[in-house]
Amino acid sequence: MYNKLSEEILEGFKKIIGEKNVIYDREKIIDYSHDEITLKEFYNLPEVVLKPNNNLEISEILKICYREKIPVTARGGGTGLSGGCIPIYGGVIIDFENMKKVIEVDKENFTITVEAGLTLKEFYEIVNKHNMFFPPHPGDESATIGGLIATNAGGARAVKYGVMRNFVKEIEVVLPDGSIETFGGKYKKCSSGYSLLNLFIGSEGTLGIITKATISLIPPSEKIYTLIIPFKDLGQGIKVSPLIIQKKIIPLAIEFLEKNIINLVENYLNKKWPCEIGNAYLMIMVDGTEEETLKTSEKIAEICSENGALDVFIIEDEKRQKEVLDMRSMIYEALKSNTLEILDITVPVSKIYNFVYEVKKIEEKYKTYIPIYGHAGDGNVHTHIMKGEFKENKWVEIENWKEKYKLVKDEIHIIGKNLNGILSGEHGIGLLKKEYLSLFFSEKHINLMKEIKKIFDPNNILNPGKIF
Amino acid sequence: MYNKLSEEILEGFKKIIGEKNVIYDREKIIDYSHDEITLKEFYNLPEVVLKPNNNLEISEILKICYREKIPVTARGGGTGLSGGCIPIYGGVIIDFENMKKVIEVDKENFTITVEAGLTLKEFYEIVNKHNMFFPPHPGDESATIGGLIATNAGGARAVKYGVMRNFVKEIEVVLPDGSIETFGGKYKKCSSGYSLLNLFIGSEGTLGIITKATISLIPPSEKIYTLIIPFKDLGQGIKVSPLIIQKKIIPLAIEFLEKNIINLVENYLNKKWPCEIGNAYLMIMVDGTEEETLKTSEKIAEICSENGALDVFIIEDEKRQKEVLDMRSMIYEALKSNTLEILDITVPVSKIYNFVYEVKKIEEKYKTYIPIYGHAGDGNVHTHIMKGEFKENKWVEIENWKEKYKLVKDEIHIIGKNLNGILSGEHGIGLLKKEYLSLFFSEKHINLMKEIKKIFDPNNILNPGKIF
Repeated sequence: MYNKLSEEILEGFKKIIGEKNVIYDREKIIDYSHDEITLKEFYNLPEVVLKPNNNLEISEILKICYREKIPVTARGGGTGLSGGCIPIYGGVIIDFENMKKVIEVDKENFTITVEAGLTLKEFYEIVNKHNMFFPPHPGDESATIGGLIATNAGGARAVKYGVMRNFVKEIEVVLPDGSIETFGGKYKKCSSGYSLLNLFIGSEGTLGIITKATISLIPPSEKIYTLIIPFKDLGQGIKVSPLIIQKKIIPLAIEFLEKNIINLVENYLNKKWPCEIGNAYLMIMVDGTEEETLKTSEKIAEICSENGALDVFIIEDEKRQKEVLDMRSMIYEALKSNTLEILDITVPVSKIYNFVYEVKKIEEKYKTYIPIYGHAGDGNVHTHIMKGEFKENKWVEIENWKEKYKLVKDEIHIIGKNLNGILSGEHGIGLLKKEYLSLFFSEKHINLMKEIKKIFDPNNILNPGKIF
Repeated sequence: MYNKLSEEILEGFKKIIGEKNVIYDREKIIDYSHDEITLKEFYNLPEVVLKPNNNLEISEILKICYREKIPVTARGGGTGLSGGCIPIYGGVIIDFENMKKVIEVDKENFTITVEAGLTLKEFYEIVNKHNMFFPPHPGDESATIGGLIATNAGGARAVKYGVMRNFVKEIEVVLPDGSIETFGGKYKKCSSGYSLLNLFIGSEGTLGIITKATISLIPPSEKIYTLIIPFKDLGQGIKVSPLIIQKKIIPLAIEFLEKNIINLVENYLNKKWPCEIGNAYLMIMVDGTEEETLKTSEKIAEICSENGALDVFIIEDEKRQKEVLDMRSMIYEALKSNTLEILDITVPVSKIYNFVYEVKKIEEKYKTYIPIYGHAGDGNVHTHIMKGEFKENKWVEIENWKEKYKLVKDEIHIIGKNLNGILSGEHGIGLLKKEYLSLFFSEKHINLMKEIKKIFDPNNILNPGKIF
């Protein structure tokens, strides 16, 4: 199906990007066999890792791979959670380590243009330096801009301003045949043919390789506050969040968490959560002028107090807020050692309660442990399927976890489907979620996607075996 | 290339939707030969107009047309400005007059689901009744929801909350072979394969026929104010608008207009503009709580006064605000009798001044009249190519307007391209803008669009001859 790399092809790569950027020693490429997923049976080594320096070099590389039928997988920060950048057919990995240039900071149009390899952490630094604000906060800040676009990443702060799709204005892309194209532009309205820009956002490296992007930003809010609100149980907390939005308050983020997960993160990071009472929490971020932020916080406190909140902690200190957001972002890491898979089903906001309730029933039915937490403001719920449970400060193996894995996974997906949800809200389909695609989409729908793939990538060399 | 309708096929249509909904008398279908464009050489009659009652009937109609190779053009309110719904190959027009059902008002998820034939005016009424707010305001309220999605319409109030693309959550579509598919859903995050929803938004009826849509809404603002700000000349006004955004104020709308156009609208509608001084105006809409709205208005007034504004009129009265917005929306109508074509080029906000300046030079060079106005907040500029000029209360023919038409049109498009603009911001490519597609897109880009069209519509029966 695919050809293996020959000495001649490797020499070709070396000529294009320089010898030091062509890596094939097993020990040096072992980390490229996986992203952040835990299931080792999905890991697979590439034949070579290439670190090009610019779009033209990527174009040259793709011309060779296109001609020689060699699979090419673009890899950002490797922070994916569904195996999206695993080179399951071997071949070439493109690593963007050498492509981190900030090309333009445009203060008039409120955009920043960067190469695809810049990490989110580096991007936030530049954005802050220029007194702008980038609302999305996909958890892991070592993700790259290219990767974030390829998965249409979201994160906690998507309730008020949206996800990556809402902020990507223009991308430069190298297509499989080596041609370089630009989609989108720095305009705020476009009705000029099919939106290929939007087709690329979330396409997981299967249509072309994103090399450059222009991201729109907003003026920073004067203040951001984080509220931690404890409840007796999770159900109470979840039921409050639509009430907040109905009162015309749209926060940056509304997250829900349970105490047992917080304890685990406290233990893992050796940090303290701001609040000890309660068994579940809402974590709400609000922004605006100082006056607005205070007023909004008070209104939220009032709504929560009237609906079962045990207290309301308002965190104003920036550093302390960052710590709390980091604790939230590190949940996956804290659970990872005993996680089989993290699910990413997204339901309408009004259905979160039902989803959580049904998942708890599954947890009971299978006598297992299913940590569940996520974005109460946007319906994106993360559910972990586990092989162990953290009890009295240590991990205890769940009985028959191997047998339960697939059964639990099936049942949770069916719940999501029945509640009009979607398979993945922000992680992407990648490798791990492919088997459920036909539960959420008709055969016709999937075939249309496959046909689109063929147009862009007739030889199927780009990230083959992903999505469908 | 296409087949003509036979008696047998017409009988088939009558069986599906009832005899009274199949219309082919010339005098009754004459209005279906065009939209709001003025160039009569582009008008073309359909063979028949069908008024189906639901999606299943549309499916049955398409099955026949697909089999028999008969062109099908969906028509919403017929308010288009680029000939998008003109049946240039004859065949069938689908009129959505009988498909105006409100299917669901979902207060928990803040969405409303309607059939595609509901007009914008009817939609606003339902939205208001349920105490929600739909920010976009594409000028002509007799446009339908289906049409607004098919062109990714925008309008004046797109600066703060965005265009149709930002509000369409789910669509039901009948594909050319008659299959019925749903794209999108009531979730706020999705990273599950290629976004076919976004591919359909702005596809101008060429990929499938939209029959139903779920639109997201926001809580209504307590107050909306409209500010009218006169300047000595247009350049001054345009230069102020980026300053407002840089001061972290994001209004609902920032429009720019010249006095001569306002006079024309006053004359046409027999209504008075709120302000007589100045030669150009900014019209700014702000929303928020009463306190916020007042404060924002004051801040804007301050910025404008420091930068050349002759005065600032703040309109609080709702009815008066509606009148002013209507006057803005009626500019096209007021100019229409002497308009050859309205252009819809969109440039980065920072380039509006340059665009207007360059267009004024063209106006002078060709001794013609080019009314120019539009959305200073989002870069979407409307430029009219005219055959007459309104002088001393009557239209005076422009010398050699026929010869100047194409030359002026070419030059304006080249200006737009050179300023990194895009061909159409909200009107769509339709029929009239096709010739400039290759100025703004590479051959490869256009070919990718054509290939996508083929996947969805292999027999090329849906709105053939549009976009490319």
